[in-house]
Amino acid sequence: MISKNQLKLLRALGQKKQRKAHGLFLVQGEKNVLELVNSDLKVKHVFATSEFLAQHSSELAQFECIEASLDELTKASTLVSNNAAIAVVEIPSVEIPRAQGLMIALDGVSDPGNLGTIIRVADWYGIKHIVASTDCADPYNPKTISATMGSFGRVTVSQLDLPNYLAQSNLPVYGAFLEGESVHKTDFAAQGILLMGSESHGIRQQAAQYVTDKITIPAFGGAESLNVAMATGIILDNLRRQHN
Amino acid sequence: MISKNQLKLLRALGQKKQRKAHGLFLVQGEKNVLELVNSDLKVKHVFATSEFLAQHSSELAQFECIEASLDELTKASTLVSNNAAIAVVEIPSVEIPRAQGLMIALDGVSDPGNLGTIIRVADWYGIKHIVASTDCADPYNPKTISATMGSFGRVTVSQLDLPNYLAQSNLPVYGAFLEGESVHKTDFAAQGILLMGSESHGIRQQAAQYVTDKITIPAFGGAESLNVAMATGIILDNLRRQHN
Repeated sequence: MISKNQLKLLRALGQKKQRKAHGLFLVQGEKNVLELVNSDLKVKHVFATSEFLAQHSSELAQFECIEASLDELTKASTLVSNNAAIAVVEIPSVEIPRAQGLMIALDGVSDPGNLGTIIRVADWYGIKHIVASTDCADPYNPKTISATMGSFGRVTVSQLDLPNYLAQSNLPVYGAFLEGESVHKTDFAAQGILLMGSESHGIRQQAAQYVTDKITIPAFGGAESLNVAMATGIILDNLRRQHN
Repeated sequence: MISKNQLKLLRALGQKKQRKAHGLFLVQGEKNVLELVNSDLKVKHVFATSEFLAQHSSELAQFECIEASLDELTKASTLVSNNAAIAVVEIPSVEIPRAQGLMIALDGVSDPGNLGTIIRVADWYGIKHIVASTDCADPYNPKTISATMGSFGRVTVSQLDLPNYLAQSNLPVYGAFLEGESVHKTDFAAQGILLMGSESHGIRQQAAQYVTDKITIPAFGGAESLNVAMATGIILDNLRRQHN
């Protein structure tokens, strides 16, 4: 059973301020909770149905598990869909990554679903680190975590002073602009930073000044733009076909 | 002002059965409503704020417009966000497209948001026709239309007996499977059908038997899968770099 205090905590962790105050975040849904088994993240509690706990008893033995009904879990969940498991996890202290290898930088990407989808596709293409402007979506927002489909444990996201980070990096910065060079013709370096802006504002001047190569996804039809997560995935595919 | 009967109709059109009965669907949001101006779709009514109507008076002159407050529109809307404009549009009779050129076929893609995102990226890559199994999401679902970001007017979606359609086509059928050949190495023909299955079930046997080429997006990291819309976009990019 989920106690009153536990329910209060679960509800509170839907809010960024409370996540920061407690140093905790929520991981919801069976697939995401099971990803915790192989991650280095510190799990405080797992609330789950008896079926889920029985089915995964060996993997979950390392965690403090609390049985709850599906009804209780659905009420406690910040997600719309039914939810057989919710974990309360410590927010790790992430070191700001050195600028090396292939990285992603995000400028003002404020939708948590988009951020989560970018984390997932980054993981697919073997990108380990994302740096993000401080006004990007919170990487520990429940919607972000859900959209990662488990990739949250394998990709770090550091919110920081993005222009300053780009200024100090010695890597080429590939900025996605509608008027850039086609990614079908770009010679990508083996190391570099892919910089993506928000759908509404693009890459802002403060970050854009550090772009060394303007790139674009060639269009063949009538759509004016692509979703930022979609665009990130397509560009990563073009990068990786040259450097794998 | 939106009358009681009009409100009732707007609400009803959130449901597939009612859309079918009335032969009407909803187009919501400023960008999507403005896309109607250049489309061949027949618009019955546009409900919009006075600001929106004033700002776009010349484009909207061809439509029967009804002024409403933002509050009324938000109440009438099936979307969560504020909504300055809602159009009621006739569902067009779409001819089943001949199998030619580059096409997309969808097997059991049931999430309307994913379908809408696929329509948008299809439009970006100049694909005009999507054929979809009858259990795919409704192309006239409000969530589908919203996710297309205006591309609903440039891409047709025909729900049909998919295995039968594939059986009768003479085009190569590129089916996305986790164990297919890398799209980085595939020689795509100039004409063909890209067949995508759902994230949970993949391409089902009834459709899979018509696949001539199994393809896959090469993975470099830890993610197990990609969202079906993301995967569609990445494969289309690989197709178009060979045939543009």
